[in-house]
Amino acid sequence: MPESPYPMIPIEEAIDLVLQAVQPLPPVRAPFNDALGLVLAEDVHAAEPMPPFRAASVDGYAVIASDTAAIRQVVGDQSAGYVDDVQVTPGTAVRVTTGAPVPPGADAMVMVEFTEKQGGYVEIKTNVTPGRSIRAVGQDLADGQLVLAQGSLLGAPDIGLLAMIGKTQVLVHPAPRVGVMSTGDELVEPGNPLKPGQIRDANRFSLMSAVREAEGVPIDLGKVTDETGSLQETIERGLGKADALLTSGGVSMGQLDLVKPYLAEHGKIHFGRVRAKPGKPVTLATLKGVPVFAMPGFPVSALVSFEIYVRPALLKMAGRTHVHRPRRRVTLTHDVPHIAGRTEFQRAIVTHSTGGRYTAVTTGFQGSGRLLSMHGANALLVLPYQQADFPAGTEVEAIMTGPAQETDREPQ
Amino acid sequence: MPESPYPMIPIEEAIDLVLQAVQPLPPVRAPFNDALGLVLAEDVHAAEPMPPFRAASVDGYAVIASDTAAIRQVVGDQSAGYVDDVQVTPGTAVRVTTGAPVPPGADAMVMVEFTEKQGGYVEIKTNVTPGRSIRAVGQDLADGQLVLAQGSLLGAPDIGLLAMIGKTQVLVHPAPRVGVMSTGDELVEPGNPLKPGQIRDANRFSLMSAVREAEGVPIDLGKVTDETGSLQETIERGLGKADALLTSGGVSMGQLDLVKPYLAEHGKIHFGRVRAKPGKPVTLATLKGVPVFAMPGFPVSALVSFEIYVRPALLKMAGRTHVHRPRRRVTLTHDVPHIAGRTEFQRAIVTHSTGGRYTAVTTGFQGSGRLLSMHGANALLVLPYQQADFPAGTEVEAIMTGPAQETDREPQ
Repeated sequence: MPESPYPMIPIEEAIDLVLQAVQPLPPVRAPFNDALGLVLAEDVHAAEPMPPFRAASVDGYAVIASDTAAIRQVVGDQSAGYVDDVQVTPGTAVRVTTGAPVPPGADAMVMVEFTEKQGGYVEIKTNVTPGRSIRAVGQDLADGQLVLAQGSLLGAPDIGLLAMIGKTQVLVHPAPRVGVMSTGDELVEPGNPLKPGQIRDANRFSLMSAVREAEGVPIDLGKVTDETGSLQETIERGLGKADALLTSGGVSMGQLDLVKPYLAEHGKIHFGRVRAKPGKPVTLATLKGVPVFAMPGFPVSALVSFEIYVRPALLKMAGRTHVHRPRRRVTLTHDVPHIAGRTEFQRAIVTHSTGGRYTAVTTGFQGSGRLLSMHGANALLVLPYQQADFPAGTEVEAIMTGPAQETDREPQ
Repeated sequence: MPESPYPMIPIEEAIDLVLQAVQPLPPVRAPFNDALGLVLAEDVHAAEPMPPFRAASVDGYAVIASDTAAIRQVVGDQSAGYVDDVQVTPGTAVRVTTGAPVPPGADAMVMVEFTEKQGGYVEIKTNVTPGRSIRAVGQDLADGQLVLAQGSLLGAPDIGLLAMIGKTQVLVHPAPRVGVMSTGDELVEPGNPLKPGQIRDANRFSLMSAVREAEGVPIDLGKVTDETGSLQETIERGLGKADALLTSGGVSMGQLDLVKPYLAEHGKIHFGRVRAKPGKPVTLATLKGVPVFAMPGFPVSALVSFEIYVRPALLKMAGRTHVHRPRRRVTLTHDVPHIAGRTEFQRAIVTHSTGGRYTAVTTGFQGSGRLLSMHGANALLVLPYQQADFPAGTEVEAIMTGPAQETDREPQ
């Protein structure tokens, strides 16, 4: 039996090849309210100043600050939403509600708490300074100002800003649609009882969930069966509607492994083996310009490979510029056995203490089938291939897949 | 004009009152694949061991480890997905693919890379140890084992675990449905041109987005108009289909403020003023058991109030036990003016240097209408009411609303 035709490459090289193979998706026009979590593909400017008129920031009375009258005639009532035909002159005041225009003539607002109404008159019981409690025209946004720059990741305040300036359609990079399929004759659907030799398909569902967590849109392409043409049919169906494809299973060295030969024949394979555990046989190909990530079938291998190679790719396709997880130096709290020769990703829980130290505990038996080793983990420890066995107290690098746990003594 | 009837309470007390007023939503049964991001409301056990049979973890040959024959007869071919009627005896081997059952009699697998096929025979070119490359029954999950405990937040690996054990329906706390409405006669929809005195409604859209970011389900209840009964009609419509209600605007002290009197008359007000800026008039009430958060109308005030009071409430309703953002001690890189008397939340960008220090820069003018001051912010600085003006170099507390920016340069 020949060796695999694919050279074994380091992880860093594989990640570079992934990021070279994918590009931000072409921008689309979307309703602003559907753009949360997406990346803006245009500069957005204000078409008016905000506020567009001098607006009262309190409920109270519009007055002239230099006016010395203690008691002033109330000559009008300006509510929000329109402009009343009323003017403030010396000796007068106008009742104004929060958010309403301050009438011409006035240069200050006095909060209602500091006034006393007396019939058609109001007593001002505080000192008044010019400009007080008035939001100037353009105070929040100047006319024509750049509000959101191309490349901005749109969060809740940004959706509010788009509403405020009336930008109801925006050019954004869409969320990548990711077709997910499984291979493996032993796999049955989760709802099925197991016959001898069968297990249930976990990867399709964990990978579709991981796509969602990376803010992609999963497309369930089902399970590739052993019928002739099923792999081809499934991949072609996926190419028609997805921006990326994920397969799991069928990428090792066995006689029934279908995926790699198919990808080699119909597309271009960028890499087919990585010096990593789990995830050695992970494969990246492009078919008709669509990246296809062929992941190993072991549940941990598939999800770890997703984290290392697919997630950065999906974020780049979504137009993100920060596509990598933060990394931290963490101290091992126990011995971690490791076999040199391939870089190992061990699942761990990282804790941040009041003193600022990060410590790591692994999640027990690290078998590639033991999906439970990923439950509750917030980090992947990176154990480099050059070294064996890491004793307690060693500092290693951790890829933070979630926020560090904080100890009880973290300041409140 | 009388003072507000509501006592001014500290922020911490307001947060406590919020968390007392809301409870985890009653569990519902959901398809496992819809449970991503939700909290499990039952213990989930495995009903079978995983793997359920001795499974080959490589492609190769099943053999007897103590067998000394260099060349063995290949007596069968065991693919994945069924159990063949074949047995390994001394002098024989069976071809087995990854994931397939290891036939009876065999106690080790030899990778195909270490073998050579010769007609109906195979040469074993490596030492063989018992148990090698065989995944034992129950190695990943024991029969009856607790797989996921009540209270687990379900991530991608957990959805895979549920698929693996065939748990297709799970009891979870549902995502809270949150009705969002705006008040204010000056407000028009984002698609509308502005007439004099009008502005566009930003809060309904930023708050619905914030609900989504907190993994709630927003329900757009529209804008309360100035017609009699509109507030009542909108709130009653919301009570019929939402687990919590958010209003913005209409909570200060003016003559047209409708919300607080309505809530006082029809429900119970838990607090109506907080010693905070922005967000002083924020109000919590319960109506027919449903929490109603009445937020100020200024766009920044509404979103900051959401962050401080509503987000922890929604997370608690979703069954989460960790409902608070992490807090960090950060060093100000510039003078930060602050008026004593109320705790101020200033929007800032916090950077974490490789040396481990956290530093903060505020996002410019901190006006309550300047939504742009929230764009790109990853933290709210907490400037306590007891102290005025914070000079550069002061350490203050920051509520981390996003991950710290990372830099490998030491701060100045």
